Amino acid sequence: MHNISLIYRWSNTFWLVLGGCGSAVLAASFPELGIGFVGVSLAFGLTVLTMAYAIGHISGCHLNPAVSFGLCVGGKLSVKELILYIISQVLGGIAGAFVLYLIATGKAGFDVTAGFASNGYGKHSPNGYSLISVLITEVVMTFMFLIIILGSTDKKAYARFAPIAIGLALTLIHLITIPVSNTSVNPARSTAVAIFQGSWAIEQLWLFWIAPIIGAILAGIVYKFLETEKY
Amino acid sequence: MHNISLIYRWSNTFWLVLGGCGSAVLAASFPELGIGFVGVSLAFGLTVLTMAYAIGHISGCHLNPAVSFGLCVGGKLSVKELILYIISQVLGGIAGAFVLYLIATGKAGFDVTAGFASNGYGKHSPNGYSLISVLITEVVMTFMFLIIILGSTDKKAYARFAPIAIGLALTLIHLITIPVSNTSVNPARSTAVAIFQGSWAIEQLWLFWIAPIIGAILAGIVYKFLETEKY
Amino acid sequence: MHNISLIYRWSNTFWLVLGGCGSAVLAASFPELGIGFVGVSLAFGLTVLTMAYAIGHISGCHLNPAVSFGLCVGGKLSVKELILYIISQVLGGIAGAFVLYLIATGKAGFDVTAGFASNGYGKHSPNGYSLISVLITEVVMTFMFLIIILGSTDKKAYARFAPIAIGLALTLIHLITIPVSNTSVNPARSTAVAIFQGSWAIEQLWLFWIAPIIGAILAGIVYKFLETEKY
Amino acid sequence: MHNISLIYRWSNTFWLVLGGCGSAVLAASFPELGIGFVGVSLAFGLTVLTMAYAIGHISGCHLNPAVSFGLCVGGKLSVKELILYIISQVLGGIAGAFVLYLIATGKAGFDVTAGFASNGYGKHSPNGYSLISVLITEVVMTFMFLIIILGSTDKKAYARFAPIAIGLALTLIHLITIPVSNTSVNPARSTAVAIFQGSWAIEQLWLFWIAPIIGAILAGIVYKFLETEKY
Repeated sequence: MHNISLIYRWSNTFWLVLGGCGSAVLAASFPELGIGFVGVSLAFGLTVLTMAYAIGHISGCHLNPAVSFGLCVGGKLSVKELILYIISQVLGGIAGAFVLYLIATGKAGFDVTAGFASNGYGKHSPNGYSLISVLITEVVMTFMFLIIILGSTDKKAYARFAPIAIGLALTLIHLITIPVSNTSVNPARSTAVAIFQGSWAIEQLWLFWIAPIIGAILAGIVYKFLETEKY
Repeated sequence: MHNISLIYRWSNTFWLVLGGCGSAVLAASFPELGIGFVGVSLAFGLTVLTMAYAIGHISGCHLNPAVSFGLCVGGKLSVKELILYIISQVLGGIAGAFVLYLIATGKAGFDVTAGFASNGYGKHSPNGYSLISVLITEVVMTFMFLIIILGSTDKKAYARFAPIAIGLALTLIHLITIPVSNTSVNPARSTAVAIFQGSWAIEQLWLFWIAPIIGAILAGIVYKFLETEKY
Repeated sequence: MHNISLIYRWSNTFWLVLGGCGSAVLAASFPELGIGFVGVSLAFGLTVLTMAYAIGHISGCHLNPAVSFGLCVGGKLSVKELILYIISQVLGGIAGAFVLYLIATGKAGFDVTAGFASNGYGKHSPNGYSLISVLITEVVMTFMFLIIILGSTDKKAYARFAPIAIGLALTLIHLITIPVSNTSVNPARSTAVAIFQGSWAIEQLWLFWIAPIIGAILAGIVYKFLETEKY
Repeated sequence: MHNISLIYRWSNTFWLVLGGCGSAVLAASFPELGIGFVGVSLAFGLTVLTMAYAIGHISGCHLNPAVSFGLCVGGKLSVKELILYIISQVLGGIAGAFVLYLIATGKAGFDVTAGFASNGYGKHSPNGYSLISVLITEVVMTFMFLIIILGSTDKKAYARFAPIAIGLALTLIHLITIPVSNTSVNPARSTAVAIFQGSWAIEQLWLFWIAPIIGAILAGIVYKFLETEKY
């Protein structure tokens, strides 16, 4: 069971990076007909929604190291599991980025260093937002993402709708923040493409580990407090 | 329970303003790839959909003073609760607008007085619609919004689908009316950003309290009448 | 019960015309940020989805004279009911168009004769499609719309998902056919706006009664045949 | 029962080609207001979602020869059934393409050889992707499509949500890959339009049979292995 579970974690982040970052790299800027940020936002959300329904007998929320941190703080994951999950998430993401790289290089003139859907701040923010803006954005958005994940998968919630709520929450977060940070809220996703971009994306990668994890831990604490109050 | 409930109200409107107005301020007009009014409409609706599933054990509909008025008229809320809810909604909205302001100022050249997703009529309507047009729009749209909220959360309805119906109703209302009034149907949302815009948005704010509340009260009366007929 | 039921029919088509045609008239062509045909398609579908969940204890499918014809042929509606339904649908649509007209005239330069979201063929088809193309389109699309309505509300189907299936079917039909006929599949919707457009839309209105009704009747017959086979 | 079942298979692929390819041919490139790749992606997904809810008492997944291959490998379909299904899928697709052709020719200047939503590689890839890129894309995307289909229709999954998961998975796949291969993942869809395009689309058609079927068979094998592990 545990091995299978890891394979699923792996495939989750694989699909998130291949689908979400793939839509950004391959389809966002196509002349006239390109999908733009609306399409990329939809794509990211739908990777989560589809995988969560596909492997619904396993909680669909572990595709993200920040989320796993939040669940660990919330007491729902041991430290050993946390480490195993993060490793499988990062490897899955890299595998997704690798397949995307193979596809993307089949077009003349493709330049991976131009971005490859990497996250960044300052002059590498899509619309030039400062480090502080990006930091606030990633902390707050991951915080809200976790609140929605924890709330919609709560025993008292309508669990069958959780994949819709969580997937569309990720779509929403992208609709708001692609121009700011290119939207991470997921260190594994940021790491996977940064390795291929190879220069500034790696230098700025620290932020996309620290900020989402801070947001997720805060959410874990707040949610635990709220839960205590409830009973 | 009551305190928790207020925290949730607070977070509802916080997310509505940060997410909905945030998508408008940060992402709508990005050159070539911007999300436009379709993306903003989706974002507003998804803030409601996601929070309603996240905190589904509490009725997800109190994120809006006009809605609370309608429910109060419909006999489902005491006057004391109404006042407490409105205060928490306005404070939550202001908090959302404040976070958005912090993020938005991280870009050189940001000018909050240019609009900050505020609602307006006449020369401050996005497409130049008159006070009367905006008044009719906000009354009718809030009326229909309430009918959908009251109907989809009715004991006989499929309550688990209500967050989808209510969230996508807000998306629909934005798809129709952003060019007219920038779409309010929610006095707390209008107030939150008007405070930051600081000039014309405050002068025109009265309309975005009066019109949604009229629409909501009318809907409460009509729905009560229909309910009586049913039995 | 019957009176209430008529009020609901009325409000259904009111919302379809105000929301669907409203999005087309008010928001589709806004410079740079307009919602385009994707937004209009979403809006039409969401009017049906939201009203169907709001008034789910009543079958949500009678917002359309062609659908009512199909149900009548399928033996699920008496001729007397059919006539009452059609009258209420047309009146509801006209009321929706009237509110839209009031709002739209609040902008300087609005010209209702320019189209007002009317359906047309030949030189009044949005992209110049011939009468034959428009006829085939409206017959086939209404046929498929009815198959989806009848199938998704079947006793054996997942009835709670029917509003999603039916609403998004209308979105889909608009995504395909707005450039051909401006998409009717609903004589009440066509009539409501044609009355305001006042010239060519009235002359071409016959097609948008005949074609959808042919499609709906064919679907009623085919579905009845399939049902017989099933048992 | 079996005859009915074939009629449904037929109508599934009919709707997929008429709706998905129809949106691409008729609506994608309309000046200013066209639906672009986002709209086409939505349309493809919604054809599946709507038909799956409409005929939900039958597994909604047999609209695609590659999927049928995968199910056959997975032991859920006999070889005889496989052949019957593929024939009905291809005939249904051709019927859909024929209706689309009738509609499209009603506009002056329509040129079917310009593409007719056909799939291609190299200079017939929408954005010039190589044969290898297109091959990888179609194998991987069909693989993931099958994993989502098999997973979301699993006995332990929330089967009522499967049409949403599967339909939106097809939307997602289109959001990512239209610029690469014009997105097939379905040999019947590719064949149906290639016959009308008549030249290069037929020459390149082999790839859009081989690649999706490889992807589907791999998914069938992997899923079977995972299932074995689970127990």
